[in-house]
Amino acid sequence: MEEQANAVGVAFVEHYYHLFDHDRAALVSLYNPTSMLTFEGQRIQGYDHISEKINQLPFDQCRHAISTVDVQPSAVAGGVVVFVSGSLQLQGEEYSLRFSQMFHLIPTGEGGYFVQNDMFRLNYG
Amino acid sequence: MEEQANAVGVAFVEHYYHLFDHDRAALVSLYNPTSMLTFEGQRIQGYDHISEKINQLPFDQCRHAISTVDVQPSAVAGGVVVFVSGSLQLQGEEYSLRFSQMFHLIPTGEGGYFVQNDMFRLNYG
Repeated sequence: MEEQANAVGVAFVEHYYHLFDHDRAALVSLYNPTSMLTFEGQRIQGYDHISEKINQLPFDQCRHAISTVDVQPSAVAGGVVVFVSGSLQLQGEEYSLRFSQMFHLIPTGEGGYFVQNDMFRLNYG
Repeated sequence: MEEQANAVGVAFVEHYYHLFDHDRAALVSLYNPTSMLTFEGQRIQGYDHISEKINQLPFDQCRHAISTVDVQPSAVAGGVVVFVSGSLQLQGEEYSLRFSQMFHLIPTGEGGYFVQNDMFRLNYG
């Protein structure tokens, strides 16, 4: 159970940040109408609003570099909790930004997963 | 639903870090046998092992200062996902350490909550 959750979480992280950096508009496919995103304290619900938020972020090209990925099975059957830390390099900026993000992934019932909970914070320090 | 979850999450955060800083041994009461803690990548399960880990951390006195608390209702009925960032000041150390931590809280059925998922990372940067 833990190994399976770990494989799901690690594969999700790779997929999510690859899409974010290369095909951001496609991220909408990972959310559903009940999904929640809290982005720097701003609460957004539903894949349409989440997609709008992600696509209107004030930068075009970026690169995520992942430092740590922690994964646990959740209390939902087949669910997975993922906790990520890393850095975000924006095009034209000298310094990268540290961030932390957590996801709660729920099985779709069709062999995939969607993001039920997503919380993102930049780490100032 | 969101407001109730938020109240639970904020109260939990206050309680958790107060206990951590003033009565660390009492933290065990917040976990149960299925609880999971991933501490700096180390995976620990069950309140007895989690308690052992927390009480054997290589510092005695510490102070957590919380910077941000984000809360969402989870996919579990009554469940709450909490995402915290802050800093940790160890006694005798000049600089504090930045950290991020997430909790998944599940209702006990008796009006309280226990921690099902707990993941902690120091943020180096």
